[in-house]
Amino acid sequence: MLNYLKDSRELLLRFFDSFFLGLDADYRKINRWGPDVLARMNSFVTGGKMVRGSLVRLTHDMSEGTHGDEAIAAGAAMELFQAAFLIHDDIMDRDVTRRGKPSVHAQYAEVAENEAVDDSLHIGEALGICAGDVALFLAFEILGTLNVNGEIKGKLLYNFCRELEYVGLAQMADVYHGAGRDAVSRENILALYRYKTGRYTFSLPFTAGLILAGRDDAVIEQFTLLGEKLGIIFQIKDDELGLWAHEEELGKPVGSDISENKKTLYREILFERARDDDKKRLLKIFGNKKIGPGDIGYIRSLLESSGTRNEVENLTNRFSEEVRTIIRSLPATQPLWKDRLLELLDYNRQRTK
Amino acid sequence: MLNYLKDSRELLLRFFDSFFLGLDADYRKINRWGPDVLARMNSFVTGGKMVRGSLVRLTHDMSEGTHGDEAIAAGAAMELFQAAFLIHDDIMDRDVTRRGKPSVHAQYAEVAENEAVDDSLHIGEALGICAGDVALFLAFEILGTLNVNGEIKGKLLYNFCRELEYVGLAQMADVYHGAGRDAVSRENILALYRYKTGRYTFSLPFTAGLILAGRDDAVIEQFTLLGEKLGIIFQIKDDELGLWAHEEELGKPVGSDISENKKTLYREILFERARDDDKKRLLKIFGNKKIGPGDIGYIRSLLESSGTRNEVENLTNRFSEEVRTIIRSLPATQPLWKDRLLELLDYNRQRTK
Repeated sequence: MLNYLKDSRELLLRFFDSFFLGLDADYRKINRWGPDVLARMNSFVTGGKMVRGSLVRLTHDMSEGTHGDEAIAAGAAMELFQAAFLIHDDIMDRDVTRRGKPSVHAQYAEVAENEAVDDSLHIGEALGICAGDVALFLAFEILGTLNVNGEIKGKLLYNFCRELEYVGLAQMADVYHGAGRDAVSRENILALYRYKTGRYTFSLPFTAGLILAGRDDAVIEQFTLLGEKLGIIFQIKDDELGLWAHEEELGKPVGSDISENKKTLYREILFERARDDDKKRLLKIFGNKKIGPGDIGYIRSLLESSGTRNEVENLTNRFSEEVRTIIRSLPATQPLWKDRLLELLDYNRQRTK
Repeated sequence: MLNYLKDSRELLLRFFDSFFLGLDADYRKINRWGPDVLARMNSFVTGGKMVRGSLVRLTHDMSEGTHGDEAIAAGAAMELFQAAFLIHDDIMDRDVTRRGKPSVHAQYAEVAENEAVDDSLHIGEALGICAGDVALFLAFEILGTLNVNGEIKGKLLYNFCRELEYVGLAQMADVYHGAGRDAVSRENILALYRYKTGRYTFSLPFTAGLILAGRDDAVIEQFTLLGEKLGIIFQIKDDELGLWAHEEELGKPVGSDISENKKTLYREILFERARDDDKKRLLKIFGNKKIGPGDIGYIRSLLESSGTRNEVENLTNRFSEEVRTIIRSLPATQPLWKDRLLELLDYNRQRTK
């Protein structure tokens, strides 16, 4: 599976090379921001792991579809959507680092600062909002001009739009939960993981590949469910990395979920299990912008000693079992592909960034 | 023309009624923000004049196309794009009023404030960014599922995406100019008007209607040029209204272009013509967030006495002549339609909001 992801990433990189090159002349005509946005976007999308984009190709290829080039293009669109969301999210979360570099709005704030433009932080955010919007339009340009028949194109676009709308709504819940003082139930947290990560990161690219390959709705439903479960595991891993990863490898600050008071599953279970005196201390740490390594260390050890880490591990094991059951029940395909899906589960659980 | 716009608006309102109703059940399943966004979006889009949406129908109908329903739907998508841009723009410009009501991010800041959520202003902005994104996806959902053949759909989506990308780039220039201290040349100002307003507000809906009606590229080019010129006139009128309109009728604060230091044509010509002592005073007013009626009154009278208002009027007359020439040269159509386009020019020049 890792080789398959690596090969797919290569194909996506090649697509982006010629895609951005093809836009260059037109964009230069508009204003200085035309080539500027293309360069930053190219650097941004090619700096990611491109898992989402690769998954479009995966389900297309395992269905032996005939739209290989279009699956790469749709995968590239998927990566541009992800870029747009990350650019907008970083503004909402005030994150200044992403993929090991300054986040896009932070880059723009620096441009404004260097050119002695007033109000440079706000201008950076404003330019970031615009750049994210442009990334969305570029993604739709790719999808809208795919060389597929009208029925496939309509179905594909409908699926993308609906899921992206739901991601937007889930992001609203995420932002609002982060700022709110109330606890968020496990049920609501899992609902958020389902829409913001599961359906978006896995079900959507799975579905895109299947639609391109002309598969029927029953198969799409199975893969949608598979994607939801894989996505919840992926998100829990993301939360885990946000607490325990090596910062350099992760490419963004460890502990930012704590200072942003993200209502993760770890946090919720920790509060369910913590003693009153620990709770008091935790309430002072979560949502505090100025936490240090000591605070993170304290939370890490409490996650272990309270049994929280163990409980989350058990939950992940349960979801993993469900994933294996779904993979076994998928329609007949070459064993190779089922193995790859199982490897995707392992990758999801073992990744370090 | 006014009657035609009114009728089109009615048809768009009817479309939106059933569109939002059709989304309601699915959106309710996601979270509290699903129905919330739909309600705010419905109120927002139906509060506008819907000129852009109506223009899609106009060029489709004057071409005697057979996609009447699709022209209304594409017009509705146009209005949703506009809603998304306005929601994002208001965050960038820190405008808290729009269409006579609190702007969307200001509404969300109030929700957060009322529910004792921390950092309510920022949370309002974050929710506004998301709501704008959702509006974009809804617009693409409409376009992606139009009942037209694959060729028309591809051409339509390509056109929409490219122009929207350029609007994003033009908005970046606009934001950046506003914050910068340097003068912006007339040429750059007109280039901005062309992409941010002309091609987007007129050429794009014109083109959408023509594509739906199956018109060829030569006609689309003529209408694109017509749209650019009409749009520059529209933008100059917008600038004029921002200086001289009645605030209640306009639905947003008069003078905000001054406090935001927008590099309008009026501002540029005023600085070209002002005496040194006036220039000093002007520099203290433009970009100042705390200007009062006295400052606006001073600028108004200087715009008159310096001959700036007159020069802009002459420029507008020149563009109007060019518009009339293009309309006369359009391919043969019933005289009624050419008259309507001429009335659109008049409307553009005479509107009071």
